[in-house]
Amino acid sequence: MQWPTHGSNPQYLYESFNMSLPKKYIDFSVNTNPFGPPKIIGERWHEWIDAINDYPDPKTISLKQKLANKDGVAEESILVGNGGAELITLIARMLQEKRVLIVQPAFSEYEAACRASRCHIFYHLLQEGDWELDVDVLLSKLAHVDAIFLCTPNNPTGVTYSKAALLKLLQLCNEKNVHVIVDEAFYDFYAEYSSLVTYITKFPNLIIIRSLTKMYAIAGIRLGYVISQPKTIQKLAAFQPHWSVNALALKIGEVSIEQSAYVKKTQNYIMNERERIFRTLKELQFIVSTSKVNFYLMKDPHTHDQLPLFRFLLKKGIIPRHTANFPGIEGRWLRLAVKQAEDHNQLAEALTEWRKQS
Amino acid sequence: MQWPTHGSNPQYLYESFNMSLPKKYIDFSVNTNPFGPPKIIGERWHEWIDAINDYPDPKTISLKQKLANKDGVAEESILVGNGGAELITLIARMLQEKRVLIVQPAFSEYEAACRASRCHIFYHLLQEGDWELDVDVLLSKLAHVDAIFLCTPNNPTGVTYSKAALLKLLQLCNEKNVHVIVDEAFYDFYAEYSSLVTYITKFPNLIIIRSLTKMYAIAGIRLGYVISQPKTIQKLAAFQPHWSVNALALKIGEVSIEQSAYVKKTQNYIMNERERIFRTLKELQFIVSTSKVNFYLMKDPHTHDQLPLFRFLLKKGIIPRHTANFPGIEGRWLRLAVKQAEDHNQLAEALTEWRKQS
Repeated sequence: MQWPTHGSNPQYLYESFNMSLPKKYIDFSVNTNPFGPPKIIGERWHEWIDAINDYPDPKTISLKQKLANKDGVAEESILVGNGGAELITLIARMLQEKRVLIVQPAFSEYEAACRASRCHIFYHLLQEGDWELDVDVLLSKLAHVDAIFLCTPNNPTGVTYSKAALLKLLQLCNEKNVHVIVDEAFYDFYAEYSSLVTYITKFPNLIIIRSLTKMYAIAGIRLGYVISQPKTIQKLAAFQPHWSVNALALKIGEVSIEQSAYVKKTQNYIMNERERIFRTLKELQFIVSTSKVNFYLMKDPHTHDQLPLFRFLLKKGIIPRHTANFPGIEGRWLRLAVKQAEDHNQLAEALTEWRKQS
Repeated sequence: MQWPTHGSNPQYLYESFNMSLPKKYIDFSVNTNPFGPPKIIGERWHEWIDAINDYPDPKTISLKQKLANKDGVAEESILVGNGGAELITLIARMLQEKRVLIVQPAFSEYEAACRASRCHIFYHLLQEGDWELDVDVLLSKLAHVDAIFLCTPNNPTGVTYSKAALLKLLQLCNEKNVHVIVDEAFYDFYAEYSSLVTYITKFPNLIIIRSLTKMYAIAGIRLGYVISQPKTIQKLAAFQPHWSVNALALKIGEVSIEQSAYVKKTQNYIMNERERIFRTLKELQFIVSTSKVNFYLMKDPHTHDQLPLFRFLLKKGIIPRHTANFPGIEGRWLRLAVKQAEDHNQLAEALTEWRKQS
């Protein structure tokens, strides 16, 4: 069977199981804000039709200025891209044929993009269960790599790594001239997350990836950015197609990043609702990862293979993210997004039924 | 002075002249349909807000099927991209470090993308004035190249090359294993244009680029596609970022390509209005290229340097496309789009004034 490489687009998942997509389903495989896009996007939508006619600003200046201002960095330290996936591709291209270490499990695009750039790929596998960054073990592997990819808060576990560990890693990598790519795509779902962004002036080897499509639930329009030193930004920009960021993404991005109340509301909701569903799951004897964000890993410890559970949920129109293509997990867990309370009630109901029959 | 690399975004052009952008201006540097997007886009706009929330279909299946059907090719022969510029970048990447011959003058992204891929760039310069493809001269240069880029109908001249010449080129390039990249971005502005698309099965070395942003005036949303044999499509797709084509572009593309009446209306209008403005320009003793599409080259033969004319028009809020960065032209002509009749009346008025004072 050919597993889909990502969540979302559930038709491909059902196809690969030879099942038809039910009319009603809840897609727990999508990691975006359960509230959907900020209200202001709907309010201003009718104005933005004018943006499709003319070419977008290829320098993305207006959005870049706002991002620079928000993150307290120079405009020259930012590259706006056609979603995080494009930025990963540009970084991989800069690293062409180099030796790349990926802290796994992680978003599968690092490996896919690096393979397309003929990089030599190595894994550093985290300990299953706690998924913490064991930085001293990682440091011992530095001698033979040119770059490290990691994701914090981590996708798929939701675990955030300790800042002290990351700074230790950055320091040694800087000395050894190893690029450290830190994907902070989900940083803004966790109110207490402490970003590495202030360290880009100190560490020229640090490259931070940010996404706007998760918090603002605008995955359809594609929008992300990279923060690094200007020299790195220029190298990446040279590989980027002209007009890569569409005009609507620029408009939507500019108003979205001003929605601080919406971000706060989301953070609070995610924290509370995640803990609520966690209590239910634990009562039903499921195990979850210590996620700080809007998704988590879950498993039924009573069975080694989670595939029957996965099928059971799919039949009920409840769509988890399979983990078959996450090295270090290989299907032993399911990833679920934190969604609306009523979605969780349906999840709980289905899992209660599973528990009774299993 | 730093010339902007492209038309559109006139603020950058005025900046480079230390002039401020007038409140009212007519942008003749943009090559898109003067009618703007098809009406149906406005009618369905409010529905499409839902598309921004979820990830776009990474396989772009629904649009790809419609394109395949329209062009009479297999779905496996199509790759949909984030605008023509992305597709050019993917092709350049496939040609990394190879020897690339560009038939010049042409769209500047071929060279920019090939340079980013460290290709060795050669030019074949067309004869100034008639701009026809002198295929026998071109054929004599085949021994030392791996790929040829050309654009027909040509940007910036508007001239279409003879099919017999192109087939002769394709045949010999096929024998010598030279890729031929034919950019047909403006093919649908010319009713009698005879596409090379039927030859992709015969010539595995043929790669055709199409754009949807010109005819349908949707440059802001980015949409184009490549037609070639499946083996080439797979190679290009491997370099493309995941979810590269945004969900709105997919929606807009699907309805746009069904607007055949709009295409016909545009073709007729462009032909008639181009000939109308050509008569005026010729009466005013300007020279124009023998364009078949929605833009053309123009020069005042009374002066070698067109820069004073360019400045004169900019001051009047009439914005031609400079040609400083087109090899084989280097500023000796201006490129102008075919626009609405009232825009042409203003152009004629300004040029009459120029003619009187010069």
